[in-house]
Amino acid sequence: MIRDAAHPLLLTPGPVSVSATTKQVMMIDCPSGDVEFQTDVSQARDYLIGLINGRGAYTAIPVPGSATYANEGIIATLVPPGGKVLIHTNGVYGDRLIEICAANGTPHAVLRTPPFAPATPDAFKAALCADSAITHVMVVHCETSTGMLNPLEPVAEICRRHAKGLLIDAVASFGAMAIDARALGFHAVTLSSNKCMQGVPGVGWAIVQQHALEAARGVCRSLSLDLWDQNQHMERTGAFRFTPPTHVVAAFAQACREHAAEGGSAVRLSRYRRNWHRLIDGMRQMGFSTVVPDEHASPIVATFHNPPDPAFSFDALFQGMKRRGFVIFPGRLAIADTFRIGCMGDVTEDDIGNAMAALAETLVEMGMTSFGRPELLPAGQEGQRG
Amino acid sequence: MIRDAAHPLLLTPGPVSVSATTKQVMMIDCPSGDVEFQTDVSQARDYLIGLINGRGAYTAIPVPGSATYANEGIIATLVPPGGKVLIHTNGVYGDRLIEICAANGTPHAVLRTPPFAPATPDAFKAALCADSAITHVMVVHCETSTGMLNPLEPVAEICRRHAKGLLIDAVASFGAMAIDARALGFHAVTLSSNKCMQGVPGVGWAIVQQHALEAARGVCRSLSLDLWDQNQHMERTGAFRFTPPTHVVAAFAQACREHAAEGGSAVRLSRYRRNWHRLIDGMRQMGFSTVVPDEHASPIVATFHNPPDPAFSFDALFQGMKRRGFVIFPGRLAIADTFRIGCMGDVTEDDIGNAMAALAETLVEMGMTSFGRPELLPAGQEGQRG
Repeated sequence: MIRDAAHPLLLTPGPVSVSATTKQVMMIDCPSGDVEFQTDVSQARDYLIGLINGRGAYTAIPVPGSATYANEGIIATLVPPGGKVLIHTNGVYGDRLIEICAANGTPHAVLRTPPFAPATPDAFKAALCADSAITHVMVVHCETSTGMLNPLEPVAEICRRHAKGLLIDAVASFGAMAIDARALGFHAVTLSSNKCMQGVPGVGWAIVQQHALEAARGVCRSLSLDLWDQNQHMERTGAFRFTPPTHVVAAFAQACREHAAEGGSAVRLSRYRRNWHRLIDGMRQMGFSTVVPDEHASPIVATFHNPPDPAFSFDALFQGMKRRGFVIFPGRLAIADTFRIGCMGDVTEDDIGNAMAALAETLVEMGMTSFGRPELLPAGQEGQRG
Repeated sequence: MIRDAAHPLLLTPGPVSVSATTKQVMMIDCPSGDVEFQTDVSQARDYLIGLINGRGAYTAIPVPGSATYANEGIIATLVPPGGKVLIHTNGVYGDRLIEICAANGTPHAVLRTPPFAPATPDAFKAALCADSAITHVMVVHCETSTGMLNPLEPVAEICRRHAKGLLIDAVASFGAMAIDARALGFHAVTLSSNKCMQGVPGVGWAIVQQHALEAARGVCRSLSLDLWDQNQHMERTGAFRFTPPTHVVAAFAQACREHAAEGGSAVRLSRYRRNWHRLIDGMRQMGFSTVVPDEHASPIVATFHNPPDPAFSFDALFQGMKRRGFVIFPGRLAIADTFRIGCMGDVTEDDIGNAMAALAETLVEMGMTSFGRPELLPAGQEGQRG
């Protein structure tokens, strides 16, 4: 496959690279009313429910647009009047859930922890005991802004014990990390068509407990984001309520088939783990250091400190990598002087190896002669460092 | 180009067929933060504003998902607390605007006319005079459910005279029919990335008068659909607030370039008109009759009565056409015993000619020997009719 600036491999927190076979299905204009399209949709829904071990108790609801819409959809549809959500945040995507509640006028409380610390069970317990109005808890499984992984089991157990509805933003983890509905008993989980599912971006999904959804008729004050309404319509007719992004949906059905063919979430996670190890090993050998402690890091994206070398600039690194066919990503403003390299998507360990070689080349080009390790540089380059 | 059941030409009210060159740009995974992507977005925005002659006074805001989201976005963002919308409806898409208002709790009044009659200026005047709380009027330019065209000039003039904000759903007309912002002075118009713009479906757009948008900060009670917020973010950073459907957006930028290369809306409208004439002439020669009077019909889709022949079934016609590489569309339930054939998208007069031949063949196959005209049947088929 050609990799150049016009056909780059995306090593970013998203959008991530997608297989050519997934993109290829978008070369057909499929009619949304036809049996082939509706079969694609139905099989994708069933596949997603199977991935969380939720058959018989959950329904998968597509939300064209973006995964953020799916997050807004579950908050606006599942938190009834009189309800209140406790949001845990330790990053940009947790903060976005707070913005959603604020825009919707949804009563909410916030449990904030530092960017590299998950909330402890005691912290959740204290927050719930401090406010008896709380009916739901929403958490971000994997903070794409850092790669920080927030474990689900402790919060699920507390929600079960305190009889709170658990809502999970699994946008960055779904399709790789294990999320078991029977074990966790959540009300809803959201995902992206892109990210670890490796479809093209353009459809969010909410997988919602049927029991929780039954109570939600008429709750949502948006037509577009009303998951109850979309679900009843799709169950009744097999169709979307509004013209769907047919190409994106067909590509997602193909992405589900490729996810299954790869061996499912566990096998995909192993590949991402190999990518991540290759990445952080390579970067550390070149002298870079990671921001998130390894025990909290998820193998989807890694955040690195900018090196103290005065010759370093992220823009020069970005441009040098882009010219070599790799797209990397800036850090978030809130975590100054960092940058990110992703491991998810249609990316192999060899791709990461090639990216590390490209990075070493770029560092030399940038004149970072005091940085990095010569044994990682491509043959013939060492002489230029002297 | 191969046309068969697996690669059909869509002759539907939407999704419509898109050029191979527009789809081809989706074979690249483009990073949403890159200058190439942001240039695509910026050029598409500028092109859309130019199409309505709105430069300097309007801003184009993408709404990933569906054109319905864009309609909900303008209602939820531009109608302030204390505002009230008069909705004109004569079809499914007018009715959907009412559903949007109902879900959002937006005060609204309804002016309903029969499916094949536009609202008269007097009817608009009477509705406005009857309710001084009305601040905005929203209309559907072209009712995709029938092909009915509702003229904009009369309602624009009344809105100007009564100082009401005019909101236009031009989802089915934008890109072909003339919509001039200087002449009409509307607050907002919505469109689809698909339909007459001939991009792939997946992004709605709202083109909003800057002056009307300035007053809209904090009005919308949804984060996802807040057009004020998306606009300020895009003006400031060049970026979407949430991961955009990158492939769909890149295809839309290409569709805009192809729209310009074709010669713009007027030339595209001429092509659709030729398609439409070829379609209704062909269908009438075969004995079919149209539902919408020609003077109210728009050349994007035509609605036909099911013929009284007992051998006719829409399903058999649909399947026979599909096998021949053409997708046609059922009628709307509210208008019983009708079906629809579209004229928009990447479709030429020759395509319509081929579709008419396929339709004649299919009628013979269905045993509709009392229907149609033998001179339209393909050579060698006449014998089978005897």
